[in-house]
Formats: sequence, structure tokens, C-alpha cells
Amino acid sequence: MFSTEYLVKYINSAISKIKYPEEPRGLYEPIKYTLDGGGKRLRPLLTLATCDALGGDIDAAKNQAIGIEMFHNFTLLHDDVMDNADMRRGKATVHKKWDEATAILSGDAMLTLATQYMVKGDGTKSWDIITLFNTTAMEVYQGQQYDMDFELRDNVTVDEYIEMIRLKTSVLLGCACKLGAIMAGAYDSERNAFYKYGMRLGLAFQLQDDYLDTYGDPNIFGKNIGGDILNDKKTWLLISALNEDKTGTLKSIIGNSEIEGEKKIALVKSIYDNLNLGNRCKELMKKYAHEAVDALKTVGLNDKDLDFFTQLSLDAIGRNH
Amino acid sequence: MFSTEYLVKYINSAISKIKYPEEPRGLYEPIKYTLDGGGKRLRPLLTLATCDALGGDIDAAKNQAIGIEMFHNFTLLHDDVMDNADMRRGKATVHKKWDEATAILSGDAMLTLATQYMVKGDGTKSWDIITLFNTTAMEVYQGQQYDMDFELRDNVTVDEYIEMIRLKTSVLLGCACKLGAIMAGAYDSERNAFYKYGMRLGLAFQLQDDYLDTYGDPNIFGKNIGGDILNDKKTWLLISALNEDKTGTLKSIIGNSEIEGEKKIALVKSIYDNLNLGNRCKELMKKYAHEAVDALKTVGLNDKDLDFFTQLSLDAIGRNH
Repeated sequence: MFSTEYLVKYINSAISKIKYPEEPRGLYEPIKYTLDGGGKRLRPLLTLATCDALGGDIDAAKNQAIGIEMFHNFTLLHDDVMDNADMRRGKATVHKKWDEATAILSGDAMLTLATQYMVKGDGTKSWDIITLFNTTAMEVYQGQQYDMDFELRDNVTVDEYIEMIRLKTSVLLGCACKLGAIMAGAYDSERNAFYKYGMRLGLAFQLQDDYLDTYGDPNIFGKNIGGDILNDKKTWLLISALNEDKTGTLKSIIGNSEIEGEKKIALVKSIYDNLNLGNRCKELMKKYAHEAVDALKTVGLNDKDLDFFTQLSLDAIGRNH
Repeated sequence: MFSTEYLVKYINSAISKIKYPEEPRGLYEPIKYTLDGGGKRLRPLLTLATCDALGGDIDAAKNQAIGIEMFHNFTLLHDDVMDNADMRRGKATVHKKWDEATAILSGDAMLTLATQYMVKGDGTKSWDIITLFNTTAMEVYQGQQYDMDFELRDNVTVDEYIEMIRLKTSVLLGCACKLGAIMAGAYDSERNAFYKYGMRLGLAFQLQDDYLDTYGDPNIFGKNIGGDILNDKKTWLLISALNEDKTGTLKSIIGNSEIEGEKKIALVKSIYDNLNLGNRCKELMKKYAHEAVDALKTVGLNDKDLDFFTQLSLDAIGRNH
């Protein structure tokens, strides 16, 4: 089994070697800018690691690894336009650095490029790959739509929220794993076990995102703590609190435009704390992380490989940023 | 050979039967709204007619016909956001009726849905289909980017313009034909002849679009005449005129914000007329329409089928709206 460091290097090297046409520059420069912007490379890491663990040659899954990272970055690019976000990974977003039309069009091109990468390589696997990829993409859009819908609703349930992050975030991690399994020529049972691993990992990962935004260490987190609270972002914490706080205090706080800044963060956090939501969020993500690893127990990986995926799930919930 | 009317009915029926998931409605309603909005259905018509003419069963190309219309409508949807257009086919555009985020996300979903339709059906043809489709999509984005770039440049040549409309408009018509040829199981020579037909037809079609915006009959055209002139839109007419008018009169007119409305239209049109550009535009589109039909002469179609495609090319340059 290759190390995480090796695989991330492998991916970054593959991404840096992508040859884009020179013209039109307005189309390709934002794509390069976005993909070179870094990030954890978690999805292609999962693709390569799964392929490796199931006896495949990682070179065989290289194009799919690039494709899944291209797709992920396309969703970020378009999400940033939809959210009107100024910054991403410490750099100006594409629609700020260029303009909105450029961001929309470059994103479209990234989706098609991702599809092109998906079907590269062993043609006998293209059907499975493209079917999985298209289905996953539709689920991601559904998740994004629910996420936007939830911002306009005040009766979202925790189950609805989990289903939303399953669609918006988790299926892509499941897909990333399954792509690697398919390219390794794995059995259906192995493909599905790794899909479940990625899916559960994704749920844990997103909950940790929610958790860190409120309970993270401001010196390590990289963004300001409490941004979700200030924006009334419907996270697991806020939705749980809205459902459990029968006094109406929380609703009156988030409905009061005069309560803002640090004061608002402190007030909302104190409600979270009274409901013990920080710890309960941690427990829930641990449950998902355990389920992720459990899903792999049927596959019969060697200890070293199982350790790799176990560590990845521990990192997802133990990370500070 | 089926009639144009029959094939358009067939397409409209197939499109009306598309089953979208009920939820999330915010994602699927704009897609249905866009696709049900009408239009000439030229691209799927080309797919079905080509399949038919080459001995294929049109049912075999139905999914690709839906896919190409889905893709075309996706490009219109995103183009309307980029251009901030209010109306399309007499109805409010998606970003006006809903909002911009909805338009971006629904468009993304339409691109993925188009890809899903492309690979439906006979699996032995999926590789050729998806390769052609992805390549064409990238060319369309390149064309759109050049179109946006040209608006900021004042030294665009006529050759650059023709290359831009080849990418933005024509390759998709070529692709539409070739999809039908592939699904009919046609030879490479037949696929390529029909691709060339669609491509040349697309050039003629776009030039007629440019022509009608300035020289169309206001009672039939459906939009106000002269919109391109008022927006300094870099059409074949304006680019040709800018390159040929050495007096600088045209530049001074379009650079003068005090010259507007009917006065501007009349002044610019008089320069076009002095350069005989209306007639020359007509001549050029006739040349492309002839080349389109000539491309099919190698295929050995029967007279009735050749008449069908000849009539289509005559309609492209003879239409009033």
C-alpha cells in the first residue's frame, strides 16, 4: 500500500501535467487556476488508494482520479458563484478574479473535461464508470438544490439534513472509491463495500466541517470561527438546536438582526452547549467513521491496507482544519 | 424518409414524455420549463433524419436526439445568465423566473442529463458517441469564449468570426448529424459526410441569424430589428464593415454614445448598404448551404432523401425568423 503522502504527490503531479489548449485563454486559465489551487485531494486519494488496495495498478485509475478531482472543483467553482463567495483556499474565487460569465463557462468546461477523463483508459470499464459518474453527478446537484432550499425553510429535520449531505458530499466520496474499485477490476461486493466506506466517510467528514466552524481552534481552522452561526447556515448543529429548543429562544436570536457578531456567536453557542450538541455531533461522526471501516471488513483486506482506510476515517473526524 | 413535421412531432412527444424526479422541484422544474419552451428542434431533427436516411431505425437514435436537444438548451440557459438576457422564446429566462443559482445548477444538471441520454441504447456505439459528444461540447465552450472575447476587441477578422461560429454553433449541428449516422451503424465516410453537411448548414444558419437581425421583416422576425446594431454585437456584418470602412465613420458611430435608437440603426445600415454587405452575406450563406448539400453527394442517398436535406439547407437560408 502506498502512503497518503505518496498518493497526494502522485495526484498533484498528474494534475500539474495536464495540458490545456493555449487558446482561448479565458476558458482554460481559470480551470488551471482552480485545479492548481490545492485542497486535500481527498477524492482522487480515495480512488487511487481503493484501486491499490484491491490489487489494481494505480496508473490504471489515474484518469478517473483526475476526473473526480476535476468534477469536485467544478462544483466548488459554480457553488462559489451561487453563494457569491469571494475567497476559496486563500485565493480570490474565479468569478471575483475574472467575472461571472467566465466562472460559469469554465465550470461547464470542467464538467465536460471530467467526463472525458472518466472514460479514458480500459474501454471495457467505461460503461460502469460513466453510469456511476453521471448518477453521482445528478445526486450532487440534488444535494446542492436541497441545501439551497433548506436556507429558505425553518422546519428542516435532522434526517432531511443527513440526506442532503449524503447527496451533496457523501456520494461523491463513495463514487471516488468505487471508481478505483472498478478500475482495479474488483467484484461487485468489493465495489459496493468501498462505496459504502466512502459514503459513510463523507457523512463523518461533513459533520466535522460543521463542528469545526463552531468549535474549531481559530488559530488552526483557517477561517473565522462562527461564520455558519453568523450566516444562519443550516448545519447539523443549528437544525438540531432548532428542533430541540422548544423555548423559542434560538429562533428569536437568529430572527433578530440587531444581534450580530461575537455576541450572536456566543448566544447561539451557549444554546448548543446547553443541548450538548458539540459532543453529540462528535459522537455521530464517530458512529459514521466506524460504520465506514466496518463496511470494509467484508472485503478481506490485509491489515496494512485496512489500517490505511481506518486512519483516513480517523483523520476525517480528528482533523483541525 | 419521414417528413420534417413527423420528426419534429416525434421529438416533441419524446421530450414531453421525459420523467423527472418529483424532488427537488427547484432543480427539475426549470429543466422541464426550458425544454418544453419549444424552439426549432433543428438538432434532434438532424439526428433522426440522418439516422433514417442511412437506413437506421429512428427509435435507435431517440436518446441521442433528446440528448443533443438537452445539451443545446443547457447552453442557451447558461448563455442567458452570462448575457443577462430577460427573455427567450417569448418567455422569461430561468434566471429571471427563478434566480441565478437555479439557472446555473439546473443547467449543470442538463449537461449531465444530456450525457446520460448520449450513452443510452446500443452499448457498442457508446464509445464513439461519448467521444464525439465531449469533443463537440468543448468546442462549443471555446466558441462561446471567443464570442465573449470578441466583444472586447476591435480588430476581429472575418476569418476569426467564421471560426468562432464554427465552434459555437456549427459543430453542434455536425455532431447532431453524426450522432444519427453512428446510431444507424453507418460507415466512417458516411458519418463524416453528414458531419460536414451539419457543419456547413450551421455556418449558413448563423449567417442568416446575423442577416435577419438587421435585414429581417419586423412583422415576421419576432424580435426587434437592429438589436445587434444597437448592442454593437460583433456579427459578420459589423466585423466585415469595421474591416472595410477605412474612413473611420463606422467606428465613430459605434463609439458615440449619443447616437442611439433608430438613428444608429439607420446610420450603420447605410454603411452596410454602401458596402453591399446584405447581399454579400446572402451570397456567403448560399455558398455554405451549397457546400452542405455537396458534402452529401458522396453518400449515395436516394433522390427523396437528398431532397430532404437540400430543402433543410434552403430553409436555413430562406427562413424569415
